[in-house]
Amino acid sequence: MRLRLLEATVELLVERGFSGTSTTLVSERAGVSRGAQLHHFPTKNDLVVAAVEHLTELRGLELEQALGRLPRGRGRTQAVVRVLGDHFSSPVFVAALELWVAARTDELLLAAVAPLEQRVGRETHRLTVEALGVDESRPGSRELVQATLDLVRGLGLADTITDDARRRARILDHWAAVLDRELEATR
Amino acid sequence: MRLRLLEATVELLVERGFSGTSTTLVSERAGVSRGAQLHHFPTKNDLVVAAVEHLTELRGLELEQALGRLPRGRGRTQAVVRVLGDHFSSPVFVAALELWVAARTDELLLAAVAPLEQRVGRETHRLTVEALGVDESRPGSRELVQATLDLVRGLGLADTITDDARRRARILDHWAAVLDRELEATR
Repeated sequence: MRLRLLEATVELLVERGFSGTSTTLVSERAGVSRGAQLHHFPTKNDLVVAAVEHLTELRGLELEQALGRLPRGRGRTQAVVRVLGDHFSSPVFVAALELWVAARTDELLLAAVAPLEQRVGRETHRLTVEALGVDESRPGSRELVQATLDLVRGLGLADTITDDARRRARILDHWAAVLDRELEATR
Repeated sequence: MRLRLLEATVELLVERGFSGTSTTLVSERAGVSRGAQLHHFPTKNDLVVAAVEHLTELRGLELEQALGRLPRGRGRTQAVVRVLGDHFSSPVFVAALELWVAARTDELLLAAVAPLEQRVGRETHRLTVEALGVDESRPGSRELVQATLDLVRGLGLADTITDDARRRARILDHWAAVLDRELEATR
């Protein structure tokens, strides 16, 4: 029941945004009585913070699985960069975006979102380093990984306003080629 | 008076977010009577759409001036990239971010925001091409400019949750060096 409530919250964040997500809508969507919902999550804030945690785990797991499915060898960098691009344009990114923007002007929410965001940031960085086979002790390699993640975050944000899949693919394929050259130079 | 109302709207978007910006707060902040405000902007939507237009012009102008002040010669790329990084972490970016995210789940707002966003996107691209002295007919150079702009957008988004200035500077300086090497290769 707890999981159903959290999944309904994430769905509503994607469909209606943070301000359009109410506890009433969540209990309706989850098919859970108001009483049972209030037992698990007394306030909207409790619900949203738990949904943030759920989302954090979901994001890590989704990315880890997608990267884990990629074959090794030639074209690896391009495939990794494409997976990152897709991940940062997926519904879980959109739900997280709603929370970031709401947290910017809501202290209670920020106190919950900021540490989780740091954790997911470190985890995403670690997964990317591993997937690309980067040696972070080489000067500049850390910055290249970070730039890659900031690039896909920026592309994900652009995608929320206009469907940006073709432009994104073109930019990411080009970036993968640059990244290969640059990482080669640090080896 | 019109300008005062628009400036108050942008300020409130930065301070309180889209959902925290009401027409009452705007008229108070601008020191304009409710009657006079309703004369200029009958609905919140009219006000916000006009504020989006105002913001669009403001963003173009601010960036053009900042880029225009940069000296030519050695270190130019780094300076341009830093100006872009600052621009995408400034209050006008934050106000635009609030509008993008609100527009994602608000059709009326999206109809106003999407075409303006395209216009500001083209304009920012043009200013960047000019500032970097890029020949866009060379294969790959267009993608490099776009990737640079998506990168600074991603960095701007990260900055809204945590103060990210030092990390941003490190990544952008590294990016500028990559950009110089890559643009040189397309010449």
